[in-house]
Amino acid sequence: MKLDYPASVQALILQLKRLPGVGAKSAERMALWLLQQDGEVPEGLAKTLNLVADEISCCEICGFFATRAGCAICGDIGRDRGTLCVVEQPTDILPIERTGAFRGLYHSLGGRLSPLDNVGPEDLRIAELERRLATGEFQEIVFALGADVAGEATSNYLAELLAAGGVRITKLAQGMPVGGGLDTADTLTLHRAFENRRGVGSKSYS
Amino acid sequence: MKLDYPASVQALILQLKRLPGVGAKSAERMALWLLQQDGEVPEGLAKTLNLVADEISCCEICGFFATRAGCAICGDIGRDRGTLCVVEQPTDILPIERTGAFRGLYHSLGGRLSPLDNVGPEDLRIAELERRLATGEFQEIVFALGADVAGEATSNYLAELLAAGGVRITKLAQGMPVGGGLDTADTLTLHRAFENRRGVGSKSYS
Repeated sequence: MKLDYPASVQALILQLKRLPGVGAKSAERMALWLLQQDGEVPEGLAKTLNLVADEISCCEICGFFATRAGCAICGDIGRDRGTLCVVEQPTDILPIERTGAFRGLYHSLGGRLSPLDNVGPEDLRIAELERRLATGEFQEIVFALGADVAGEATSNYLAELLAAGGVRITKLAQGMPVGGGLDTADTLTLHRAFENRRGVGSKSYS
Repeated sequence: MKLDYPASVQALILQLKRLPGVGAKSAERMALWLLQQDGEVPEGLAKTLNLVADEISCCEICGFFATRAGCAICGDIGRDRGTLCVVEQPTDILPIERTGAFRGLYHSLGGRLSPLDNVGPEDLRIAELERRLATGEFQEIVFALGADVAGEATSNYLAELLAAGGVRITKLAQGMPVGGGLDTADTLTLHRAFENRRGVGSKSYS
């Protein structure tokens, strides 16, 4: 018989290995660390995992994480309820919130169009988006989708679909990242930065 | 109100961050990944954590991880019961097992002598080691402790303590790592490799 960890420890290692960014070695290190802690540490983590699995759901309106008490975004009366930011995933919302640049409402699609992966419009929360827009509350929709081909394709599809609604449709600016030198920018980014150049001072272009 | 994850998700991020090798960003990514999985994934992990916390204990004899069914090492009748390998931590045992170079029994000290951290002989499983040796079953003890100052000090302390027992006392060889070039070896390792040089062919030194 080859010696190995007890079966439950092996199961723990396998389950930790499924976490993103965790390989076999780190999973083993984590499991052994958990074993060597006071029982409260693994049991506390287990309790929180159960609580999260039990309590957190997807807000029916915007798709962000909601608790039993409701969604912290849709329930916030202090927000600009005339602007809607469309993102791919609920996890895209907090990075935008942290910038403080947007104070409207959100709509998470739950993904993006990707014919190769069999993701079509009916797999995303697009019908829900149309229903929200049909209420007429929104004056502007901002697409904050990925700046890659699939993200662009999704933006374009949605822009065409929603054009008839008479709502202003915008998307995030593309250009040089702040702090980035010309030597580190890729060709396409630099190309977009030229296309979207902005006036400076009094003799402005735009 | 600044928007953040629901409290239970924040708690999960904090608890994941305590795992070794996990920073704030990875903990967040793990928590969000867990949120976006089927409930079975976080609940399965929680179940395994509880099982491990409940089932795994420290073998009273050798210090390796034991289940309710006992210790897989001490209970293995196929082992060489005359040789005892002394290690610092139970986690040092499997790497040795994987080499296949040792088929005896183990004794985990639970640490090493470190006066600066207030770790003295009474904090380690040394009394238990003496009791095991007093039975007279063992012909050889192999110290497989760390090759650093604290590990060496612990080996030396134990060697002196146990010298009177009449048991053969050995420790792991020190020398060049397999596959390592002379240019990458540190001075002390190279020095030890010279000291411990072995005969080759018929006209051997040792």
